Amino acid sequence: MTSNKMKSKKFIFVRNFDGIPKEEDFKLVEEVILDLQQGEFLAKAIYLSIDPYMRAYSSRIRLGETMIGSQVAIIIESKNENFPTGSYVLGQFGWTTHFISNGTAQDVTLYPPYLIEKDEQISLSLYLGALGRTGNSAYFGFLELCKPRSGETVVISGAAGAVGSHVGQIAKMKGCYVIAIAGNQEKLNWLKSLGFDYVINYKLDNIRSELTKAAPRGIDCYFDNVGGEISSVIMQHMNRYGRIAVCGSISSYNSNATDMPKATILQPTIVFNELTVTGFIVKTWLNRWNEGIEQNAKWIKEGKLKCRETIIDGFENMPKAFINMLNGGNFGKSIVKV
Amino acid sequence: MTSNKMKSKKFIFVRNFDGIPKEEDFKLVEEVILDLQQGEFLAKAIYLSIDPYMRAYSSRIRLGETMIGSQVAIIIESKNENFPTGSYVLGQFGWTTHFISNGTAQDVTLYPPYLIEKDEQISLSLYLGALGRTGNSAYFGFLELCKPRSGETVVISGAAGAVGSHVGQIAKMKGCYVIAIAGNQEKLNWLKSLGFDYVINYKLDNIRSELTKAAPRGIDCYFDNVGGEISSVIMQHMNRYGRIAVCGSISSYNSNATDMPKATILQPTIVFNELTVTGFIVKTWLNRWNEGIEQNAKWIKEGKLKCRETIIDGFENMPKAFINMLNGGNFGKSIVKV
Repeated sequence: MTSNKMKSKKFIFVRNFDGIPKEEDFKLVEEVILDLQQGEFLAKAIYLSIDPYMRAYSSRIRLGETMIGSQVAIIIESKNENFPTGSYVLGQFGWTTHFISNGTAQDVTLYPPYLIEKDEQISLSLYLGALGRTGNSAYFGFLELCKPRSGETVVISGAAGAVGSHVGQIAKMKGCYVIAIAGNQEKLNWLKSLGFDYVINYKLDNIRSELTKAAPRGIDCYFDNVGGEISSVIMQHMNRYGRIAVCGSISSYNSNATDMPKATILQPTIVFNELTVTGFIVKTWLNRWNEGIEQNAKWIKEGKLKCRETIIDGFENMPKAFINMLNGGNFGKSIVKV
Repeated sequence: MTSNKMKSKKFIFVRNFDGIPKEEDFKLVEEVILDLQQGEFLAKAIYLSIDPYMRAYSSRIRLGETMIGSQVAIIIESKNENFPTGSYVLGQFGWTTHFISNGTAQDVTLYPPYLIEKDEQISLSLYLGALGRTGNSAYFGFLELCKPRSGETVVISGAAGAVGSHVGQIAKMKGCYVIAIAGNQEKLNWLKSLGFDYVINYKLDNIRSELTKAAPRGIDCYFDNVGGEISSVIMQHMNRYGRIAVCGSISSYNSNATDMPKATILQPTIVFNELTVTGFIVKTWLNRWNEGIEQNAKWIKEGKLKCRETIIDGFENMPKAFINMLNGGNFGKSIVKV
């Protein structure tokens, strides 16, 4: 089989985002797939990941380059014995239907592609979510930085997202009282169905008075996906030695770097409650990657961890899916199926 | 000797601060000193400490109560064998010339009084500064939370204050490059004379461009005394895994709790640079208190640590000294000598 007549589709980044990304910021292009060199393999995308970090990292992508992102792919041709034809691979190949890799990371900011085993009990798409970057963000970010103890009160913002909903379920398993914040009633109903103890609609409720009601003895851990004023209010309700893991800052991703939003300053509550606030990028735990995946897979198989996905069909819908997710239109993990 | 004819002077808190404290917010009163009960001792103030935290903590003091604070005192009468007459004591007795103590802390937020040894090489006033709460804030807060390594770049805000000027000298001893921020040229000249590498006047200079010049390879540690927008700008210049110790938030101490200032949000830089921000109150290290004092005393005797004090004479000048310090009128530690 030769690939020299096949074409790949990919989305390139053609205009810097101004506020909320628009479909016209991307361009769908086709290109002929080159022949493989020794040591290379050709991967064909099955599922592509849609994540908030893509908005924030767009400033690092030059115009004309392929948009960044992870995918689950099948290897359809190989000249690399470590990546045989027919096997499944997880790679940061970007928004493309086909990718030729030599098995190493394209650059130092990325991790190298790795094989994934097909398991009858587990959808391949989960390797982009609960069994991938998302799940490891929840597992390591929450356990290592929030250090939750049984009986403690945990607040999660962006709680209906892929990471937030996962964190809340780990917190429940650890015996914590979970307060979840999200932006509409349908999401809140879902979070209640996952067993979360108290839900707050940040668009309708007064967060300050809700927190006073929900956490009369204060908050011990805060898993922050959103940043901004909501986080300032939450952090003012924290207990001494409270721990905050900062996973994202979605509320500001659509702002320009030169015109970032302002919010009530955090230093007073950080000092007087002796808080520790730690930001993380999940790649920090690359050397323990499998530990997170194995634990999350175990919880899924035991029925203790439920993973909801918002799956959109069709590679050409990548920009739509991305914009929808940034507008809060997703439940759990956003995925595009090719 | 009986004390029943002696009178003490003290300042009570009579009006909640509104913005910058005013002299009329305090009232000087005299009261007869009671007879000692078994287990008690009578301490007479020699030096009283003036600190920024007093402004922030005022919300916890009820009107009519004595203003909070530490002092170095001499024991002039005692019915407690652990605190003999003629010895010197460090106590959180408040703004008072005389205090009767039973040797324990008045309440759980305070630490118990402890004896200090008179050392010919060391002024007694230093037990309020470099050899007390201030010095331990610098020693533990900087070393434990910023974890400085030789060759790293350290930024200090409020650098001409008691804690800031102490932190910078420790940072130099640890082989760091020190960038100091303060509010007038005389302070900056003094900080340069201490060996700090680069000084920035936050009232005149553009902090962003100065930092780009002073720290082209980024900032590793930030010791924050001020909070607010200056801190947001500094934190945007930090390197991956940078450490921030938050010792105070002076810029907001004159604001009402219901109307705290806003500043550019911190979450984006916290996430993308994987920063750790930790607030502290020095009492956290009470179980290692002497370690800090002994190390700082050693550095002072070796000439490696210079301690500047702004000493104001006369107990009746306590409010003036306090207001002057909050307005940035002090160099190093503010002290009132009775």
